[in-house]
Amino acid sequence: MPLKKKPVTGMKDILPAEMQVRDYVTGLIKETYKSFGFSPIETPCVEHIENLCSKQGGDNEKLIFKIMKRGEKLNLETAQSEADLTDSGLRYDLTVPLSRFYSNNANDLPTPFKALQMGSVWRADRPQRGRFRQFVQCDIDILGEPTCLAEIELILATTTLLGKLNFKDFKVRINERRILKAMASYSGFTEDQYDQVFIILDKMDKIGWDGVKAELIESGYPEANVEKYVTMFDEMEKAEDALAYLSEKLSGVLEEDVIENLRTIRTSVEATAASKFQLVFDPTLVRGMSYYTGTIFEIEMAEFGSSVAGGGRYDKMIGKFTGKDTPACGFSIGFERIITILMEQNFQVPGTSGKKAFLIEKNMPAEKLCEVLKEAKAEREAGAQVLVALMNKNKKFQKEQLSKEGYTEFKEFFCR
Amino acid sequence: MPLKKKPVTGMKDILPAEMQVRDYVTGLIKETYKSFGFSPIETPCVEHIENLCSKQGGDNEKLIFKIMKRGEKLNLETAQSEADLTDSGLRYDLTVPLSRFYSNNANDLPTPFKALQMGSVWRADRPQRGRFRQFVQCDIDILGEPTCLAEIELILATTTLLGKLNFKDFKVRINERRILKAMASYSGFTEDQYDQVFIILDKMDKIGWDGVKAELIESGYPEANVEKYVTMFDEMEKAEDALAYLSEKLSGVLEEDVIENLRTIRTSVEATAASKFQLVFDPTLVRGMSYYTGTIFEIEMAEFGSSVAGGGRYDKMIGKFTGKDTPACGFSIGFERIITILMEQNFQVPGTSGKKAFLIEKNMPAEKLCEVLKEAKAEREAGAQVLVALMNKNKKFQKEQLSKEGYTEFKEFFCR
Repeated sequence: MPLKKKPVTGMKDILPAEMQVRDYVTGLIKETYKSFGFSPIETPCVEHIENLCSKQGGDNEKLIFKIMKRGEKLNLETAQSEADLTDSGLRYDLTVPLSRFYSNNANDLPTPFKALQMGSVWRADRPQRGRFRQFVQCDIDILGEPTCLAEIELILATTTLLGKLNFKDFKVRINERRILKAMASYSGFTEDQYDQVFIILDKMDKIGWDGVKAELIESGYPEANVEKYVTMFDEMEKAEDALAYLSEKLSGVLEEDVIENLRTIRTSVEATAASKFQLVFDPTLVRGMSYYTGTIFEIEMAEFGSSVAGGGRYDKMIGKFTGKDTPACGFSIGFERIITILMEQNFQVPGTSGKKAFLIEKNMPAEKLCEVLKEAKAEREAGAQVLVALMNKNKKFQKEQLSKEGYTEFKEFFCR
Repeated sequence: MPLKKKPVTGMKDILPAEMQVRDYVTGLIKETYKSFGFSPIETPCVEHIENLCSKQGGDNEKLIFKIMKRGEKLNLETAQSEADLTDSGLRYDLTVPLSRFYSNNANDLPTPFKALQMGSVWRADRPQRGRFRQFVQCDIDILGEPTCLAEIELILATTTLLGKLNFKDFKVRINERRILKAMASYSGFTEDQYDQVFIILDKMDKIGWDGVKAELIESGYPEANVEKYVTMFDEMEKAEDALAYLSEKLSGVLEEDVIENLRTIRTSVEATAASKFQLVFDPTLVRGMSYYTGTIFEIEMAEFGSSVAGGGRYDKMIGKFTGKDTPACGFSIGFERIITILMEQNFQVPGTSGKKAFLIEKNMPAEKLCEVLKEAKAEREAGAQVLVALMNKNKKFQKEQLSKEGYTEFKEFFCR
């Protein structure tokens, strides 16, 4: 059987040029987040199928790479359905595994616990340009911190990192699931309708308010409710202080701490951020995952279209494992998106010039070879990157190839 | 359905203390190997099932985590066997994926190509203490280098790394598959018998020469062959120069370059190594993987029993993908083994002291909070790791927990 040369559908080989950028960004992420007190942890890539299919993952649960049972446990004859054949799968995000991790290890962790995770996740999405079925996620999460100090630290850490990567003019959009819910409730929608209403609201960017209105009515919601709902967004936009407007309008419907929290987050972040950016309250921000319970946020950069980071508070997920709710808030940056942008910008990793190639003639006697190796050793100990390789017949082509890999100095050694 | 707290069988959560050591070792590996001109690359964790089951992986092929086909491709009703249900699996090593990678990307890579891979692999082994079903492998490989310069550079790079990790008194054992074969052939064994003969020889450490002899005879091999075979090892051990003995004894059976290569490797490595270690020719070294075609090597440390690194030359594997043989030689260090040893030694990662925790009283007003955050910002910019967290009711316990995570300085901030 001939072997297959290409990677499996939707996944990719990473060549040295991209790896150099990935390693650099990974280093910067770890260094920056550690300075904010986040501790790196890791969970296995393989997760229990029960945990992956626990309705925490929304649509991602449809995209799981499932792993077959092994040995006696796999019984093809008695299997009624797919579920009988699988016991685990590849994780589709880092949040579900983190919740399991925390419930498994909470006794050995401080409170609050600030976790940093970088790891691959897998989704069997329809393959498309620039999106892959295996990709790295980079999450920071604060577990056990009920106050908005969590949100402040997450936003400061993430924006500091983006600043170090020389990203400018980005915008942090922030909203609250509780505001979304209160506005829907105030307009007469019932709790079971929220999810669909928010999915339609989420399209506002693309279809505009007329589109949102039309789609809500098409979905069978009373016109009066829809009108009341959309009018509120309109009035809020015109208000001098959107939060003050909401506070008054939703008085009695909205928990009292919500508006105050958002104000504290804004004040603190604006006063202490290390990078230049805008922090804006955006009442139309929805974010897909249904596990969010409080603040939600996203970072977008005008020049690159889609968002480069997103997150929010999910105070109810860990309780699904432990039976006891634990406050939790996280921020995930789009690692692959950032790498793509840097590669397109032809980003030069600092400190990677000066790679040296020692090319040696064929059949060099051992004593002579030792001399070359000693010279390479001295250079390496002094911090240089030195390749010792046989001189090819086509020396010119060899040097061209090596130049592409960043080799700038060539030294040739001959037998005599 | 209650969610599962423990990781899946045989896999593990990695906590901050171990992650710190892992990150440190990873950094040291990348830095050291880059100085030898190795370029980091990555392949997907998921590999074609055809490539994984191509008889390159020996017994590991029995331990594959197989991934189910998805959507329409999965047809439970028409499936006759396991093979009909799967199209891919998790890689069990980094060598098969590297061969695929090279055959897919050779045009974009220099010759020789020196690859550095660090990545997880999966084997559904029987769970046992200290061995996990997901573990990190760390491989360096030189592709397209036919001479023993590959072996020399691999051994120098690996031993330099172990030296930097403060490992001492290790022993590099080296042998040649072609010597193993020539000795078996000279003793009258036929080619189809080699694999079994070598498996028995490999047990010499445990069962001694009498055991090897007995087992060979028990397996049905003629006593004369067995006697001739074992006698050769005995004579070689008594010879002043084992390589000279072999050269003479196997003259005409053994390719001429084999002994000369081993001599050159020894001379060059001994003259230029950055660490103190012994390089010894060991004619009983076998190594399991059947894909090796030339030199094979292993590093052991007396104090830790089993081997911490191993590798060899596999000149025929890439040809299975491309139809054209490409010289290839690799060395893999036991990353998990090294981490275990360091954790047991209570290894302290350099430069991780001086973590600071800022503990703030509950309900701190925003202006006061901003001051604390500004102080944290200044510390972080000066290189410190600063945690800003709410003061718990049980402050003493909180500080104890934080001390365990390496926090040595505590500063408290009150509302007034």
